[in-house]
Amino acid sequence: MPTATPIEYADASPEVRVVYDDIMATRKIDWINNFWKVLAHHPPTLRRTWQSIKEIMAPGALDPLVKEMLYIAVSVTNNCEYCIASHTAAARKAGMTDAQLAELLAVVGMANESNRLANGYRVEVDERFK
Amino acid sequence: MPTATPIEYADASPEVRVVYDDIMATRKIDWINNFWKVLAHHPPTLRRTWQSIKEIMAPGALDPLVKEMLYIAVSVTNNCEYCIASHTAAARKAGMTDAQLAELLAVVGMANESNRLANGYRVEVDERFK
Amino acid sequence: MPTATPIEYADASPEVRVVYDDIMATRKIDWINNFWKVLAHHPPTLRRTWQSIKEIMAPGALDPLVKEMLYIAVSVTNNCEYCIASHTAAARKAGMTDAQLAELLAVVGMANESNRLANGYRVEVDERFK
Amino acid sequence: MPTATPIEYADASPEVRVVYDDIMATRKIDWINNFWKVLAHHPPTLRRTWQSIKEIMAPGALDPLVKEMLYIAVSVTNNCEYCIASHTAAARKAGMTDAQLAELLAVVGMANESNRLANGYRVEVDERFK
Amino acid sequence: MPTATPIEYADASPEVRVVYDDIMATRKIDWINNFWKVLAHHPPTLRRTWQSIKEIMAPGALDPLVKEMLYIAVSVTNNCEYCIASHTAAARKAGMTDAQLAELLAVVGMANESNRLANGYRVEVDERFK
Amino acid sequence: MPTATPIEYADASPEVRVVYDDIMATRKIDWINNFWKVLAHHPPTLRRTWQSIKEIMAPGALDPLVKEMLYIAVSVTNNCEYCIASHTAAARKAGMTDAQLAELLAVVGMANESNRLANGYRVEVDERFK
Repeated sequence: MPTATPIEYADASPEVRVVYDDIMATRKIDWINNFWKVLAHHPPTLRRTWQSIKEIMAPGALDPLVKEMLYIAVSVTNNCEYCIASHTAAARKAGMTDAQLAELLAVVGMANESNRLANGYRVEVDERFK
Repeated sequence: MPTATPIEYADASPEVRVVYDDIMATRKIDWINNFWKVLAHHPPTLRRTWQSIKEIMAPGALDPLVKEMLYIAVSVTNNCEYCIASHTAAARKAGMTDAQLAELLAVVGMANESNRLANGYRVEVDERFK
Repeated sequence: MPTATPIEYADASPEVRVVYDDIMATRKIDWINNFWKVLAHHPPTLRRTWQSIKEIMAPGALDPLVKEMLYIAVSVTNNCEYCIASHTAAARKAGMTDAQLAELLAVVGMANESNRLANGYRVEVDERFK
Repeated sequence: MPTATPIEYADASPEVRVVYDDIMATRKIDWINNFWKVLAHHPPTLRRTWQSIKEIMAPGALDPLVKEMLYIAVSVTNNCEYCIASHTAAARKAGMTDAQLAELLAVVGMANESNRLANGYRVEVDERFK
Repeated sequence: MPTATPIEYADASPEVRVVYDDIMATRKIDWINNFWKVLAHHPPTLRRTWQSIKEIMAPGALDPLVKEMLYIAVSVTNNCEYCIASHTAAARKAGMTDAQLAELLAVVGMANESNRLANGYRVEVDERFK
Repeated sequence: MPTATPIEYADASPEVRVVYDDIMATRKIDWINNFWKVLAHHPPTLRRTWQSIKEIMAPGALDPLVKEMLYIAVSVTNNCEYCIASHTAAARKAGMTDAQLAELLAVVGMANESNRLANGYRVEVDERFK
């Protein structure tokens, strides 16, 4: 059981519905996933989090698929099950192939390994990288 | 001071030089960074780590710049200073602009935030994401 | 299935019962949660962990509710499901409101985000903060 | 050397100065710390991060000192040196005593320990905590 | 549901079967655990990961049981449920007793605690340890 | 600069000296490292932390060198610089060779990698491991 039960659209306050409507319009979908329905218990967090994610994940210098893959890389490193599941789904919807996911996870695994080799040997940063 | 001092090319054994030569040839550079010069204290780790990174970071379903950015995302999440410095340099060499770095870090920050909101509220994975 | 099954009071050795009794007396409750019932497989760990938590979580310069909230902040950052569930329950029992939990999680999320922005940009510590 | 050098007020664009001015006014200080001066390289991140922190750290259901202490708890768990230094300074300015800091760090240490005991023994969440 | 369903031996390609056969021969077992059956979706990752683990976990300067215990220490710190379960089973098979597991987890817990005390107090590295 | 300056023996209170004396007697050394000299600012934390470490790191079902290596594994995974430096020194004093350190770090790196592969593919725990 989650700490807070999801708030469905039918039960949501007007200020929550404004956010739900914007999520569905922005993403061109007709449903709201549990993350938002749980944040709805604290409308300021719901609003602020959605505004930030909407702005950050929009196309810009990086395309949306690359952004979704970065999201997966962080979520896998932190082992956030909900986030791995939801962003893997989002990345697939944005066109990620099985081969791309496999390479992404290979890089994430390798980076986590070499991070610890660098830490464990206490490697000094090269002058050229400073 | 690092746990192990870097081993320079001039002081390296033949089996270490083989790896150093391959790193320089593969990356089209004429120097070796400290990470490899420290791993050289244990040639099996040097050889295996280089072979893995060489294979994983090669062009494939994802292009090398995207792979470098994924590497940064993991290293920032783990706060590995050496890795952040070296892979930021590598990504810039591969063409990453300041705007791309800024967006990358914005996504990494946001993902670390929403990972904790999902954890803290113990959000259940939606049926559609399972 | 846990690595070790919980040891119930009826099946516990005298040295384990002494700890169970002290937990119930200190917390003014009539049951023992699974964390302690699993640690009971190694009585030295059970005793030492309980003594430390009893001392650390007692009222002092910080009040017990603030301490429970700090516990949640760490557990959410580490994504320890058991600890999030048990300390959220403990904090609520100590008076934490829904609004307080929401603000706590907002701070935890934001701190995890800004930690990575500071790491990723490798921000130097200001002289005034040293 | 940081990835990006701090941008001083004198060198900042008008949109950056607006944020700097608001930071100084809100916090009743006459200087800007490096975190913001580095984020200034990407004004959307500067603006959004400041707006979020300003909203989240304002007095509400939790008082500002408790919020600063939660920030320290997360930063210590993640080992973000910049964040530990800056938020320890901020908490002290908000009235945190040495005794409070010591108890805070004792709780953070203990929580990180018991998180791993719960993980390692794979303790099942009690029915009462679900 | 996992992101990728396990690939059984009967359904595996010849290049995957070569790895499965080597895993079973090396470990003297007659089954393959899910980790490998999922990596089988990307044969280069399956092959490389197995070769690395086979080389790293072989008897050397450290005996295999110590290596399995180090694996548990990392997996518990990262809270990787699959890895905790599988390496606890492997360590037990290699002879780990309940008392050894209990001491291992006590060390892991304590190390996670003292890591944060060192971080939080920003303890400077002693000259003798540099 | 650390958050708290180390307290030297000459400046320590009697209750702190009791702990310093026990550390030196137990470890058969004639100096105190910074970790304890900083904890001395809060005598209850100094006393409790030392008692716990003394009990946990004593010979038992695992020998002290294995315990020091487990400590390194955790500290490298968390990237606690102080702890990596001090426990690498302690392990070497307890007899750890360069080859053992190299294998230890190889296992730690690999475990951090495979933890993320297991997370990222969301591998289900095998029935036999439950």
